[in-house]
Order: sequence, then C-alpha cells, then structure tokens
Amino acid sequence: MPFSHRFSLRKVAAMALEHAQNESNSLIASTKALLTDALTRFESGSIAVSFSGAEDVVLIDMIHRLGYTVDVFSLDTGRLHPETYEFIEKIRTQYATPIELLSPDAKALGDLVREKGLFSFREDGHGECCGVRKIQPLRQKLSHLKAWITGQRKDQSVTRTDVPLEQIDAAFSTPDNELTKFNPLAEWTSADVWQYIRVNEVPYNPLHERGFVSIGCQPCTRAIGPQEHERAGRWWWEEETKKECGLHSQNVVNIIATD
Amino acid sequence: MPFSHRFSLRKVAAMALEHAQNESNSLIASTKALLTDALTRFESGSIAVSFSGAEDVVLIDMIHRLGYTVDVFSLDTGRLHPETYEFIEKIRTQYATPIELLSPDAKALGDLVREKGLFSFREDGHGECCGVRKIQPLRQKLSHLKAWITGQRKDQSVTRTDVPLEQIDAAFSTPDNELTKFNPLAEWTSADVWQYIRVNEVPYNPLHERGFVSIGCQPCTRAIGPQEHERAGRWWWEEETKKECGLHSQNVVNIIATD
Amino acid sequence: MPFSHRFSLRKVAAMALEHAQNESNSLIASTKALLTDALTRFESGSIAVSFSGAEDVVLIDMIHRLGYTVDVFSLDTGRLHPETYEFIEKIRTQYATPIELLSPDAKALGDLVREKGLFSFREDGHGECCGVRKIQPLRQKLSHLKAWITGQRKDQSVTRTDVPLEQIDAAFSTPDNELTKFNPLAEWTSADVWQYIRVNEVPYNPLHERGFVSIGCQPCTRAIGPQEHERAGRWWWEEETKKECGLHSQNVVNIIATD
Amino acid sequence: MPFSHRFSLRKVAAMALEHAQNESNSLIASTKALLTDALTRFESGSIAVSFSGAEDVVLIDMIHRLGYTVDVFSLDTGRLHPETYEFIEKIRTQYATPIELLSPDAKALGDLVREKGLFSFREDGHGECCGVRKIQPLRQKLSHLKAWITGQRKDQSVTRTDVPLEQIDAAFSTPDNELTKFNPLAEWTSADVWQYIRVNEVPYNPLHERGFVSIGCQPCTRAIGPQEHERAGRWWWEEETKKECGLHSQNVVNIIATD
Repeated sequence: MPFSHRFSLRKVAAMALEHAQNESNSLIASTKALLTDALTRFESGSIAVSFSGAEDVVLIDMIHRLGYTVDVFSLDTGRLHPETYEFIEKIRTQYATPIELLSPDAKALGDLVREKGLFSFREDGHGECCGVRKIQPLRQKLSHLKAWITGQRKDQSVTRTDVPLEQIDAAFSTPDNELTKFNPLAEWTSADVWQYIRVNEVPYNPLHERGFVSIGCQPCTRAIGPQEHERAGRWWWEEETKKECGLHSQNVVNIIATD
Repeated sequence: MPFSHRFSLRKVAAMALEHAQNESNSLIASTKALLTDALTRFESGSIAVSFSGAEDVVLIDMIHRLGYTVDVFSLDTGRLHPETYEFIEKIRTQYATPIELLSPDAKALGDLVREKGLFSFREDGHGECCGVRKIQPLRQKLSHLKAWITGQRKDQSVTRTDVPLEQIDAAFSTPDNELTKFNPLAEWTSADVWQYIRVNEVPYNPLHERGFVSIGCQPCTRAIGPQEHERAGRWWWEEETKKECGLHSQNVVNIIATD
Repeated sequence: MPFSHRFSLRKVAAMALEHAQNESNSLIASTKALLTDALTRFESGSIAVSFSGAEDVVLIDMIHRLGYTVDVFSLDTGRLHPETYEFIEKIRTQYATPIELLSPDAKALGDLVREKGLFSFREDGHGECCGVRKIQPLRQKLSHLKAWITGQRKDQSVTRTDVPLEQIDAAFSTPDNELTKFNPLAEWTSADVWQYIRVNEVPYNPLHERGFVSIGCQPCTRAIGPQEHERAGRWWWEEETKKECGLHSQNVVNIIATD
Repeated sequence: MPFSHRFSLRKVAAMALEHAQNESNSLIASTKALLTDALTRFESGSIAVSFSGAEDVVLIDMIHRLGYTVDVFSLDTGRLHPETYEFIEKIRTQYATPIELLSPDAKALGDLVREKGLFSFREDGHGECCGVRKIQPLRQKLSHLKAWITGQRKDQSVTRTDVPLEQIDAAFSTPDNELTKFNPLAEWTSADVWQYIRVNEVPYNPLHERGFVSIGCQPCTRAIGPQEHERAGRWWWEEETKKECGLHSQNVVNIIATD
C-alpha cells in the first residue's frame, strides 16, 4: 500500500472528525437554546422533565449546566432494574435535585395482579400493565402541568421517526389543559448522546455496560446483541410498531393516520 | 482403622437418619393439624397466608395438600428481586391460587422518596421505608381479617426465639378487631424446611441457589457466606436485635419486655 | 406531515434494503469463492482455520455449507470465559468437527506465573502473557502448516484497516516454510457478520448478548457500552495501536512502517 | 414466658459460646503444633502446601503467622473460575509468597480435547479429565517432594470421614520416594474454618459469597442451596462416593477396602 494512500486516509479521517465536532457543537447549542426557551416560557412548577433512568440523563445534565433548576419525575413502575433505582439515586444526589417518583395506584395494581398475575404482558401485550403502572400515574401528573420535556429521539424506533422538537401533546392534553411537549433530543442520534455522556462525564446506568441500550422495566427489557436495533430489547415478543408504552402514544397515532 | 469402628459409625448414622425421619413425620403431622385447626376455626375470607416469596412457600404447599383453599397475600414493596416476582408468579400458576399483592400508597411513597431518595434506609435505618412499603399496606389488609398465617420460625433470628405456634397479634389487633396470628413453622428448623422442600419437590426461589437464605427487598438482602447466620443477609448494616421489618414487631416488644 | 413525504421515505427505505441485500449476496459469493480457492489450492492438513470462539464462527459455517471439511484450531490460553468454552464445544458438536485446542507449554507458563503472578499484563502489558499463552503454541502449530485462515476484518481496529484478503504471513513464515494467510472476512463489516449470523441462524457466543463484541481472554476482555468501538473492550488499559496479541503482529509492523 | 426461662436460655448460650471458644483455641493450637512439626521435620523445598484456591487458605495464613515460609502450589487446570484466579493472585500478593501453578501437559490435553471435546466429564465421568488436568501435573510435582500439606477435612465428604492428620501417601508414594501427607485441618469442621477466616480477616474466594462452598473447576462446581451438603456442588451428576478427583484417591481406596 503506497504511503500517499495511508496519508490521505488519515487526513480524511481528521477532516471527518473536525466536521463531526462542529456538528456536535451546533447540535448542543441548538438543544440548549430550546431548553432555555422552554424553561423561560413556562413557569417553574408548570413544566417538568420526565426522566426514564436511562440516557435521557443528558437532559438533566444540560439543564444543570445552563443553571436552571427544573422539576424532574420518573415513573416508578415497581418493576425497574435494581441498577436503575441505584442510578436514579445517583442522579438525585449528584445534581442535588429531588426526583419525584410516580407510583401506580395500589388498588388498580392489586386488581390487575390478582386477576392476571405479574406477567400478563407476556400473554396479552404490554398495554394493560403499562396502563396501570405508567400511564395512569403519568396522566395524573401531567394534568397539573403545562409542559413536559422528554428524551425521545427520531432514531430510536420506527414509531419515532417523526418526533418534532416541540408539539402539542395530543395524548395528554385535555379540553381544559393544553399540554406542550418538548423533545429536545429529537434530532440527536445515539452516537450524539453517547459522545455527550462520555465527553461531559455524565453518570450513566450501569446496565448500558452489559448490553442494554434502551432501558425500561426489568421483565420487559433485555440486552441486545451486536448490530441489533436498540428497541429490539424492549417487548421483544411484540411487533416493531407497538413498541410504545403509551407515554408517547401520539407517535403511534401518527403512524396509523399517515399509513 | 478397624472394620468394627467403620461399621458402628454407619450403624449410628442409619439410626440417626431413622430417628430424624420419624421426627420429621411427627413435625409435619402436627403442623398439618395446626393448619387444619386454623382453617376450620376461621371462615374463608377472614384468614389469609402472608407469603414472602421465600421458603414459607411450605405453608402454601401444605395447605394445598390438605385440600384447602386459602387467601394468600404478599407485600409487594416495589423493590423485590426480579427472581422473587418470577417465583411468586410460579406459585400462583402451579397452585392455581390468586395471590393478592399489597402495594404501598402512591402518595406516601412519593413523599418519602422526594424527601429522602430511594435508599434512605442506609442512612437512618429501615424503619421508615418498611413502614411505608410494608407496614401500612399490611395494617390495612389485616384490619379486614380475623387471623393470619406466617412462616416465622424460632431459629431464624435472636428476635424470634420465642415465636409461639399461635398468639394474639399484639401489633395489629385493634380495639375493634382481635387478630389471631398463626406461626405453624415456629418449631421447624431451616433443615426441616429444606428437607420438606426437597422431598416434596416444592418450587423455590432461585435466589436460594445463589447464596441467599432469608429473602426480603433487593437493596436490603444479600447472599451470605458459608456458616453465616441466615438473617446476616438482611439489613446487614444494622444490629441483630433490629432485624424485624415491623410485620412481626411483637417479637421485638417481647425482647425489650423480658430483657 | 404530508402523506407523500411518508410514502417516499418508505420507498427509499425499501430501495436501500434491496441494495443492501444485493451487496450482501455479492459479499458472501466472493467470500465463498475465496474460501473455495484456498481449500483447493492447499491440501487438507496443510491449511487450517484459526477459530477464536467469537463471531469468526462465520468462517466455519461457510466452509461447512460449501461441503468442505477443514482442520480447525483454537488457542486455549487457559483463561477463556466459561461461556467461550461452552461455545467452542457447541460448534464442535453442531458442525461435527474436531477442534484442536492449543495449550501453552506448562513449563513456560509456570515460570511466568511464579515470577509475575497471574495478572502481569496489568503491570507491564499483555505482550509477555500473550507470548506464552498464544504466540508460542500458535508458532509451533503454524510451523506444520502451509496456510491458515483467520477472521480478521478491516473494521475491527485501527491496526487492521489494511488487512488484505490474502497475504504472505510475514510474522510466522520461516526461511523453510512460506506461510499463506487468508483473511476472507477482511472486507466484511460488523453489520455484515451479524446479518449473516442471524439470517443463517449460526450459533454465537452468548457473551455477545451481554455487551461483549470482541472476545478474547476473560481478564483482558470487557463488555463495551453503547457506541463504543469494538476493540475498546480489549486490553482497555493500553493504547489503541497496541491492541494486537501477536497473532496478527504483521498488522502492527505495517503501521510502524508506513507512518 | 417466664423471665427465669429467658435468663437461663441466655446463660446457657453464653456458656456454650465460652466452651466453643476454648475448643477453638485448642484446635488452633494443636493445628499450629502439627504444622510446626511438619515444617521442621522436612527441609524447605522438600515439603509444599497444595492450595486449592478455596478455604484451605487457612493453612497459608497459619503458616504465615507461625513465621515460616513454605512452597505453595496450585493445580491450574485451565478451567478455574475467573474469581479463583483473582483470589490466588490476591493470596500471592497479600502473603508475599510465590505460588507455583501446575498446568496440564499441552500434548496430553490436546489429545483428550480433540477426541472428546471440552466437556467429556459430562458423558463418561470426571476421571479422565481430572487425570490429565490435575493428577498428571500433581504426580510430577510430588515426585520431587518428601511431604505435602493439604486442606482435607473429615466433614467434607463421605469419602473423607477417616482422613488422618498425617499419613503415608499411598497414592503418590513410589518405590523410590515415600511421601508423607499432612492433613492439618482433618478435625476442623466447616464452622471452625469459617470462624477462623472471619476472626482473622483472612481473604477468601468471593464465590463463597454466592452460594459456593466447595470450589473446584468452573464446569464441575455449582453453588448449593440452603442445607445442602458442601460436596453436593461438585460433579453433581455423579454419586457421592466418587466425589474425589484423584488428588486424594487414597480415601476412595480406604472406602472400598473397609466396606
């Protein structure tokens, strides 16, 4: 192989790296601008970050660096991985931010489990269990908010390819309460997220070092193999187009509407 | 070594085994008698088994073999091991018995976590967390019962050396409701329990094959080493005399009273 | 979002998929041609596949489908993961092929360990340990061969970007024995390999489902996080340009020569 | 329950504890005396400790406290648990003692694996594999010694109930070399061993905290459940009377002879 060829490959690589760096800086700048806009347009207490205990920790880190404080909540389904509970606690202490954990209604949960047991989602889909453990508590929470901020990204799933940076939340708005939904990471790729985490030394869920990419409830999440798509590890016994738990059911509505 | 010596050792071992077998049969017979007594004295619906997801599965198996059906409940703190949820489900299906899971009150839990995070027990003891996640839901449940059946054993802990087969529950009785508490395994040793499980091929929590003996919440239970006492794996950062979560606080009261 | 836009995205995706499929078929066809060429040019017994217990299992599968039998050897350093030993056995039985395991010389290994212990590589680099556990046994084996076949790919590492499909092995040829080295997967990407494994239901090392991509010795391999490069999990305490164990030291020589 | 009864129970417990402590001190004293005797009767270099990477670390600790240095060897079958290799290294550094690792002969091992694969013991018993991986290297080592020291205990197995403190090694002595075998822990129970380890803060193999009691090769060792006998985790698919790998085949000979 001629020396000139090697040289040119390396030069190209360096140029690509510089280009990527500029892209990344620009992406971070625009995301910070969006976050600033959201947090100034909506009063403290009327907007909150929904933190899943996974790589959407990037949102918390960015807001922290911007000097804002913001309400943060997580959906504690009672079935998260032990590692996720540890991670949520780590974020709580490291960023000195309270995290509100939303638990399912004890009565509704008891009824479901008495009738169908603890793994009904394996039989008749995850909708009912997600409904009790995630959607009901979330709906109640969102009814007291004007806006929420999520970590959704277009590259996560076929159901998310059209996620906008900002939208009216069609799933959780009510006649009395129009809810705005911000998806500041919509344009980020997984590579962007992980570059941010590593460069900024953001803590991350240790499951990410054991093959987990997308992280949800323990029984409904598995590690994925090399070159598998990240949502392949979620509700793996169901179809691609159903891999939403209802938090973002608007996405699914869109697919149905436009197909 | 003389032949005669070997022979005599073996003979002694055989005699010991036979003796143990008789003892075991007698123990099982008296336990079944107690269970029968309890389940005939108290109407269906007014008595229930408290199942911890561990080796107290013996109670469910014995009642099943006696031909009775009985209400079963478990305290789902939202922090059990994934293996324990799987095990509870296995018991539900294998014994074709509904299992009522008692969950903490969402509001009380949210308040605790927002203020102190998810691991407050490491700082100021397990009392507060057990209070919200176990005792409150249990108290509510027991207020609708006349009697309950637990898997407590004298050999489990220094706090349990005086557990009787039957007692008035001093911790959960109210002026309006005298509650009877049965501890049918009180006289059983750990060896008795495990012999029963193996001989009768009773399913058991797979954590028991990874060094776990006593099993509670995931963050508050650890595997123990060889020759460690079984409660050494529970709230290991606290003192021996505090290793009750409040389900059986009567035991602790006794210790204080008699010391 | 307009219907026409959605439609066009899907059409583009379908075209991309078809293109990828054609590419893949062409890659497989050319690789099979190379393997056929290698196995016909060199007599049975004078050529062998070096199997690492990882995704180079693709080579064994392709040769099997071509109807050839070929000698297979693996370097058993005595420090492989339990999962890797299980996987090697699985391949042995599934493809009904003996696999020769090359072990280190007991005396050389004993000397190293007595002097420096079992983890000297953490102190002074992996060269010495790889030398005893991999290179010496390999050198002895290769001295009896005319050609060997490896699973090296250009995309694995900065040290492998120039790996050719066929080369004279500069590291292991001797004055008396010119050794040919085939790298049939040189042009494959990781995505190609995993598509082949999944489409053809080739068994794979279960470590690949726990975050491991590249797999070597247990103490010198770790799982990697999302978006990390695959060789990041090998000898992670050393520099990128040193991540060769010596099997393919020719690659390193090339880098030094051309820089 | 009367106060007097409680008091008497506690008094009895205290007396039992004091008795146990005296017993333990006496056991340790006599064991140290035996070790001293062994290490003075046999010249340095002609006697060695066989260290299995498990709780026989007690021997190394006691000799260290006595102020002696002694040769230590371990049988590195190439199939030990990663945790065991880490533990052996820890002992090497903490006690500043070289540990000779005896590896199988590469040729003999290669022949076995090529013919029967890596798990032949599951098909036709562990004898052949232990023979190549343990007994041959041990025999070669012992041929250069006059005496060796092992961690065998009577309570470990039905095959070990007659293990003496000192014996002529009938299995490894040769016409030219009478070999003495010391079993200083013969009279120790598992409880004695673990009390010693905990009181003296001796490092131990972390597998002991995951349900492993007896520890051998990875594929031939499993964790045991509560109340299982410690050798139940070794070669569990074979009969109790065969649970010797050949290091101590003299024990098996004795059983056959005296039954």
